[in-house]
Amino acid sequence: MKLQNLNEVPSQDVTMEGSSGCQVKWLVGQPEGAPNFAMRQFEVAPGGFTPKHSHPYEHEVYVQEGQGVVIDGDQERPLGPGDVVYVAPNDIHQFRNAGPTPLKFLCIVPHVPKDTPVTLVPECEAVGK
Amino acid sequence: MKLQNLNEVPSQDVTMEGSSGCQVKWLVGQPEGAPNFAMRQFEVAPGGFTPKHSHPYEHEVYVQEGQGVVIDGDQERPLGPGDVVYVAPNDIHQFRNAGPTPLKFLCIVPHVPKDTPVTLVPECEAVGK
Repeated sequence: MKLQNLNEVPSQDVTMEGSSGCQVKWLVGQPEGAPNFAMRQFEVAPGGFTPKHSHPYEHEVYVQEGQGVVIDGDQERPLGPGDVVYVAPNDIHQFRNAGPTPLKFLCIVPHVPKDTPVTLVPECEAVGK
Repeated sequence: MKLQNLNEVPSQDVTMEGSSGCQVKWLVGQPEGAPNFAMRQFEVAPGGFTPKHSHPYEHEVYVQEGQGVVIDGDQERPLGPGDVVYVAPNDIHQFRNAGPTPLKFLCIVPHVPKDTPVTLVPECEAVGK
């Protein structure tokens, strides 16, 4: 068993193409020996966004703090604390902070083999501007 | 994509042997088509506890509210908001509310085949009394 507090886990900048103002904390994952999936916390700064993309694996998301939107294909859906999002494999999605404070959410993801294709939606860089 | 708020998800009583005062909300799981793992929220009433047990699959836990302890084998470790617990396969574990308000945590679990063995630790019923 491993027990730690979120505040003890270092943040890393998200450098993925199409993202802006995002940091990630890997809370549980392969370094802990987790056999199947990883728990991460994302923090998106006001005005920031994750990439608009799709991939052949799912996300299970729990919104902790802040106000945002999730792009669901061509639709924009408001997002706030206590919201739960299931992003199915191959769903086009993007998380954007639409409020004045950080948008924080947990995002659980299966362990993804290297070279798994991620398809960036071309207009993703324009969306957040 | 499925988006819903925690408040819209019905609570179910946890009837598992060795538990007391626990409710669960299934936030994402097989009904949503999730291929690998399920997200649940547990709410443990003051004085309540989950079973003291072990099983051959993992938990990834995020504590949202309240004060509790997690039993880690023979050890009792305090638990509060922002704590992250990785329960490895076959770890003996129990979550207990040690405070005056509900203990709420997310618990993510792989989809577990029926008839997966769960070993209840005999003294579990005495622990919470």
